[in-house]
Amino acid sequence: MTGGRQACCALLLLLLSSGLALALKDAQPCWRLILYYHDVMFDGANAANATAATVANATTLGNFKFGRLVVFDDPVTADEDLRSPPVARAQGLYFYDMKSDYNSWFAYTLVFNSSEHRGTINLMGADLMMEKTRDVSVVGGTGDFFMARGVATFRTEAVEGAAYFRLQMDVKLYECY
Amino acid sequence: MTGGRQACCALLLLLLSSGLALALKDAQPCWRLILYYHDVMFDGANAANATAATVANATTLGNFKFGRLVVFDDPVTADEDLRSPPVARAQGLYFYDMKSDYNSWFAYTLVFNSSEHRGTINLMGADLMMEKTRDVSVVGGTGDFFMARGVATFRTEAVEGAAYFRLQMDVKLYECY
Amino acid sequence: MTGGRQACCALLLLLLSSGLALALKDAQPCWRLILYYHDVMFDGANAANATAATVANATTLGNFKFGRLVVFDDPVTADEDLRSPPVARAQGLYFYDMKSDYNSWFAYTLVFNSSEHRGTINLMGADLMMEKTRDVSVVGGTGDFFMARGVATFRTEAVEGAAYFRLQMDVKLYECY
Repeated sequence: MTGGRQACCALLLLLLSSGLALALKDAQPCWRLILYYHDVMFDGANAANATAATVANATTLGNFKFGRLVVFDDPVTADEDLRSPPVARAQGLYFYDMKSDYNSWFAYTLVFNSSEHRGTINLMGADLMMEKTRDVSVVGGTGDFFMARGVATFRTEAVEGAAYFRLQMDVKLYECY
Repeated sequence: MTGGRQACCALLLLLLSSGLALALKDAQPCWRLILYYHDVMFDGANAANATAATVANATTLGNFKFGRLVVFDDPVTADEDLRSPPVARAQGLYFYDMKSDYNSWFAYTLVFNSSEHRGTINLMGADLMMEKTRDVSVVGGTGDFFMARGVATFRTEAVEGAAYFRLQMDVKLYECY
Repeated sequence: MTGGRQACCALLLLLLSSGLALALKDAQPCWRLILYYHDVMFDGANAANATAATVANATTLGNFKFGRLVVFDDPVTADEDLRSPPVARAQGLYFYDMKSDYNSWFAYTLVFNSSEHRGTINLMGADLMMEKTRDVSVVGGTGDFFMARGVATFRTEAVEGAAYFRLQMDVKLYECY
């Protein structure tokens, strides 16, 4: 029994002293939200519907909009339909950043303000558009999502020219408080 | 006594294996800083005083400066007086991102370089200006604030047209090392 | 022996209940990558070589490019030679933000996609250029770097006017999963 206790102590200290190197990677998320992000671009004439606008134009480096920077307050829904009632807003920016292909980078906040959830989730990371799925980081949260950390997996679901695109965002939190 | 030991071990493993789901939400912060952020906007003629400047102009989406992007190196003081000696600088950006009301988004670093504190705190999140108070995330830190995480609560204290505004930033760290 | 067990339990609970206030600062990183970041600025004529471009011009606040915002997809190598095979890409933005000296702010993703590493590391923070070394935060990671946190130390290694600069990025992860 003494050996058992010592093993417990040793295990503990090992875990703690190794920088909390837990096998979280294989863990189940403690919270998961499958969301749909709808980006409706402002073209100068659709202010009633648009929720995103270009604030810095593309440079001439390559042919894939390098440097074009977009600010958005986009609706987020629980299914794929743009007209479904939003469950959150996504507020932030993205920009294109590759000269040889479409590629972008996001930093934004999911803002929840409903009877179901109140609070925010903050995310940032590379949107490697040529990949079928790609991950950005959940770097923090507030309210119901206080101190959240995790990963969000992006999947492009629809692209309608420059006017609209839809991403599935599969948000997996591995630290919940 | 054996039961006690086993309970201790079980508690431990439960805590660790559950993704460190501690009741941090109810915890006291391990570090708290109540700070005042002063944004003095450059108007082309006040370079001596200005500490923030617009780098991308507002779009025509709505009437609330949608897309206007500001870079700042703003003074941060321990009381509400802009002329108090700064205890830190706030370096980063914000932009407006709503077509139906004033709303913004921040990403920035609090830079401390005094005899009292040396190091940085990194923050990002939505500044939901229509709310009396709103939270952004502390996503990291360096130096005295090594690996910090937490929440900062914003409260608008003063707005003087486009020239100046002041926010109280109540920075609460829940992970301190 | 009972005292030993109780001490173990007490230590445990103390550690856990204090917000995991471990002495990580003195700990060794669980992962360390010494990388070199090469910023080759687009001048309108060097599209073949350039990997960064200005998307918002400097303001007239001071003489140190205040507000100039650059988007990049820069190569990252394991040694100082720009022509070495990249081990990662750095994708993101920086901007200048001081009126009295050169100073900047970064938010970006290190994208690894090789036989050695697959995944991303997300970073943000102030690049206090007047300091010999300065730290930004690692705020998250994906893939091989799942849920990473830590600090990256920047050191300026070379500056060739507006055309090129090189930073050593000493990335130290203190949370690895």
